Amino acid sequence: MIHPQQPSGMPTAKYVPFQEQIRVELPDRTWPDRVMTAAPRWCAVDLRDGNQALIDPMDSERKMRMFKFLVKMGYKEIEVGFPSASQTDFDFVRELVEGGHIPDDVTIQVLTQSRDHLVERTFDAIRGAKQAIVHFYNSTSVLQRRVVFGMSEDGIVDIALQAARLCRKLEETVPETTVYYEYSPESYTGTELEFAVRICNEVIDVIDPTPDHKMIVNLPATVEMATPNVYADSIEWMVRHLQRRDSLVVSLHPHNDRGEGVAAAELGYLAGADRIEGCLFGNGERTGNVCLVTLGMNLFSQGIDPQVDFSDMAEIRRTVEYCNQLPVHERHPWGGDLVYTAFSGSHQDAIKKGLDDMERRATSAGTGIDDLDWGVPYLPIDPHDIGRSYEAVVRVNSQSGKGGVSYLLKAEHGLDLPRRLQVEFSHVVQARTDSEGGELTGDQIWAMFADEYLHNEDPAARWGRLAPVRSTITGSDDGADVIDSVVLVEGVETEIHGRGNGPIDAFTAALATLGVDVRVLDYHEHALSAGGDARAAAYVECAVGDRVLWGVGLHESIVKASLRAILSAVNRAERGTLVG
Amino acid sequence: MIHPQQPSGMPTAKYVPFQEQIRVELPDRTWPDRVMTAAPRWCAVDLRDGNQALIDPMDSERKMRMFKFLVKMGYKEIEVGFPSASQTDFDFVRELVEGGHIPDDVTIQVLTQSRDHLVERTFDAIRGAKQAIVHFYNSTSVLQRRVVFGMSEDGIVDIALQAARLCRKLEETVPETTVYYEYSPESYTGTELEFAVRICNEVIDVIDPTPDHKMIVNLPATVEMATPNVYADSIEWMVRHLQRRDSLVVSLHPHNDRGEGVAAAELGYLAGADRIEGCLFGNGERTGNVCLVTLGMNLFSQGIDPQVDFSDMAEIRRTVEYCNQLPVHERHPWGGDLVYTAFSGSHQDAIKKGLDDMERRATSAGTGIDDLDWGVPYLPIDPHDIGRSYEAVVRVNSQSGKGGVSYLLKAEHGLDLPRRLQVEFSHVVQARTDSEGGELTGDQIWAMFADEYLHNEDPAARWGRLAPVRSTITGSDDGADVIDSVVLVEGVETEIHGRGNGPIDAFTAALATLGVDVRVLDYHEHALSAGGDARAAAYVECAVGDRVLWGVGLHESIVKASLRAILSAVNRAERGTLVG
Repeated sequence: MIHPQQPSGMPTAKYVPFQEQIRVELPDRTWPDRVMTAAPRWCAVDLRDGNQALIDPMDSERKMRMFKFLVKMGYKEIEVGFPSASQTDFDFVRELVEGGHIPDDVTIQVLTQSRDHLVERTFDAIRGAKQAIVHFYNSTSVLQRRVVFGMSEDGIVDIALQAARLCRKLEETVPETTVYYEYSPESYTGTELEFAVRICNEVIDVIDPTPDHKMIVNLPATVEMATPNVYADSIEWMVRHLQRRDSLVVSLHPHNDRGEGVAAAELGYLAGADRIEGCLFGNGERTGNVCLVTLGMNLFSQGIDPQVDFSDMAEIRRTVEYCNQLPVHERHPWGGDLVYTAFSGSHQDAIKKGLDDMERRATSAGTGIDDLDWGVPYLPIDPHDIGRSYEAVVRVNSQSGKGGVSYLLKAEHGLDLPRRLQVEFSHVVQARTDSEGGELTGDQIWAMFADEYLHNEDPAARWGRLAPVRSTITGSDDGADVIDSVVLVEGVETEIHGRGNGPIDAFTAALATLGVDVRVLDYHEHALSAGGDARAAAYVECAVGDRVLWGVGLHESIVKASLRAILSAVNRAERGTLVG
Repeated sequence: MIHPQQPSGMPTAKYVPFQEQIRVELPDRTWPDRVMTAAPRWCAVDLRDGNQALIDPMDSERKMRMFKFLVKMGYKEIEVGFPSASQTDFDFVRELVEGGHIPDDVTIQVLTQSRDHLVERTFDAIRGAKQAIVHFYNSTSVLQRRVVFGMSEDGIVDIALQAARLCRKLEETVPETTVYYEYSPESYTGTELEFAVRICNEVIDVIDPTPDHKMIVNLPATVEMATPNVYADSIEWMVRHLQRRDSLVVSLHPHNDRGEGVAAAELGYLAGADRIEGCLFGNGERTGNVCLVTLGMNLFSQGIDPQVDFSDMAEIRRTVEYCNQLPVHERHPWGGDLVYTAFSGSHQDAIKKGLDDMERRATSAGTGIDDLDWGVPYLPIDPHDIGRSYEAVVRVNSQSGKGGVSYLLKAEHGLDLPRRLQVEFSHVVQARTDSEGGELTGDQIWAMFADEYLHNEDPAARWGRLAPVRSTITGSDDGADVIDSVVLVEGVETEIHGRGNGPIDAFTAALATLGVDVRVLDYHEHALSAGGDARAAAYVECAVGDRVLWGVGLHESIVKASLRAILSAVNRAERGTLVG
């Protein structure tokens, strides 16, 4: 028999199931019979909810880069900060307004707690903007009412109403600005629906929106507490009970604590919401906000225009990783490194047959592939549409059975290339493959790498103008190092000497005496395997004259690996390599 | 007005919406009214679907480690490979069987395509196991039937039936083994439901399962193609139409192409499935299989025993990262670095109030916190339950406003600690904090780090028995290096000499003359900022006698940084530091 699983011993008894905390009942729900047919209104909260959850919050340069990038992608509503809580955020909002960085068709949104002085400060922040959404909130959950506020329902409602009234009053202080409002009963998922709808309806009465000047009611899954169908039921229930529906924009703000933020957003949208707040690649508190890339690409893959441009996925990812200083995971839907890669032979075979079929159909119809219905097994979309290529998909796999260029260098040779070097070398490979055609074996890739960086066969011929012979480094812990090197200069042994902080600095000084202008910008080194006597790999990013490029050195000694890497970069610059 | 979003220009027209490809209609669905009350049967497919999607597939040591770990966690059904497709997998299954590594209450599962010679090879693989699940599949989707197989429905059915008949026949070749079967109509989500149920029912007839000896029917979302409610509808439809339901185990196998694998699994389980296949932390083809950690912890957080032990989340993560050689993302639900961390001040404040409330309730009830219903804002579970602590949650935030110990060293001091060193140092911090109490400032953490590793104030007093004075390294590119060092040994300048491949090897040889037994296991170095004259950080993992621990050195010279790091490790070992 197949044996049954056993109790884990974990303390399950202390957790109360969601349905015993909050009642969400909607047996006559209609959302499961609906399908999505158009994009919702998006609001990107990368600069607020995303930013506040970063280990290193964005500096103003990163913030500006993120803002302009979101605008370029097509987002029209962008939450740009929490200006009353943070001077940095305040300054950034002022910079946006005063610097004229906000296009006329983009509306900034600013978050504030429902407290008088914070609301006032918020209006100070937006003054002069053409339009802005003031997003005020207070916590409404059963748990927060008890342990954080110690207040009755009436007290909690008063907090929201007082903020709403103050907002309406402060509008006169920003006469140049058309002010819209968003109200969030924060921790909505832990709030009884009856109370959530009560507080929203009372706030709506104060804000007094119209069909021509709507108000946003945002229902956040501040913490994701149940399966996404329950969130959808709650949204459909709210939509039925919110008054003045035609004057409202119902908005979702899912977090991802149970890993179901995307599903919550989509099912909630089916349930009647109009708008979704999220972050690129799911940045945000804890497990993150719902991922706007996933949501948009999910629509796209169903033939629905997301109204946001995802066609350069690499740039989106680069920008997000730069601004957030957090990686995008290899398996992140639509954008991860591995998501268009099939490692299994049968998958690869099916992809190939699918691509062949597309070509045949295109040829016989006399059209391009873009004019046909897409249909390739294991590839839910055409990687071309987001700036990847068929070649990459197929070649990465068929080359070696496993892994791409960098992976292969790591797996077979233990080399862990720094990211920028990976990019540089992939261009080398690309350039050679494009000119020579055909697919590459692992050995061919290694040969290309060695030829480009390591020059390790027949030194005299391969190194280029400069080749290493020997070096002696002398120094003490409290002074400068002196290097006495012999290098081959066009085949002639030449002595050079230099002095500096450490051997790299001394060696670049020594090279300067040969008229070589090289500065080290960055370097990485690692052991190739365990033990002090193993070889080391050194990767050195150099400015050689006005070019920036990488050199690579391998040697038992970390010092000599570094010196070789510098010579590698210098020689590459001198032979006029195309990339770098 | 808030301006409407604009067309993206992306080629949406080439994608056909799912509902126009496959009809899934179930207006009288019942699953949305159900809630989960018990764990499903789990099947961990890390060693098959997970492994085949790795850049570097697991070697046999990693496979064995993963297998034993899955057993230890409590999984009773483990898919251990695709032995007919891979000699490595075949050998591993044989090793499991012949080495007696499979506990009596664990059932291994092996995958095979529905082809005669592969099925035969599969039975060869399991021979001698006490019990095993033979999992055979063939592709059934509209797309694959057309572009990959070029076959009618009848032809596709025949493939499955022939495999089923051969399986039943081959049972006599493995008399010691109780054989169970699993059949997957692969690419189920792209298959018309009527055809999926036809092929399953015909296979069921051949396998002829009974309530006492059930057969598994697995309905994979090989590619996730629609919102998870559609998958759930399809599962409920299948469950209604599969014959001999009491002799079946209906199994789900969701992938995550739309980021909704977890939701698909949970809603499909509500829809009547019995069993879920997935991988720890969602490894698997492309975007991965559904994550077993998320599913299990989602149940746990609802007061349902997952019947799998997640109480040492750090070990789960370490094992997965080691075996898969892929990272777990910082925001991965339940297991990521940042998911119990609240960076926002208002969240921190609410967490504190929630924890205080728990303590008050425990005190007044005269019980421990584990005996109370858990209720802390922004913390869906008690981090203690998976081996994290309250202190970490609160302290990480309040220390510096942002970031944990390692983040802080990186942000403020440019130090990028290797992962294992991060773990080691966090224990140093923990040990000191536990003994001294209170919260730590960034400066205090830096002081701890310097005190533990760098010994950089008042060298004589701080370094320990050995301190660096100066070193001269002489070597050439084609021979060994010679190091002539002066070190302080208990305050006395002492000359030592060594020879080796590179300065590190030479220095450890020199230290050996002092009776110091140190071997370098791993090292990492990086520049602290741009420019050849910037300081370098060296991190060296050393075996000192029988202890393994890290040393850290900072110096303008990468060589001297390394030598300092080695002395740092040796001194730490000699002073009997508690951790490492």
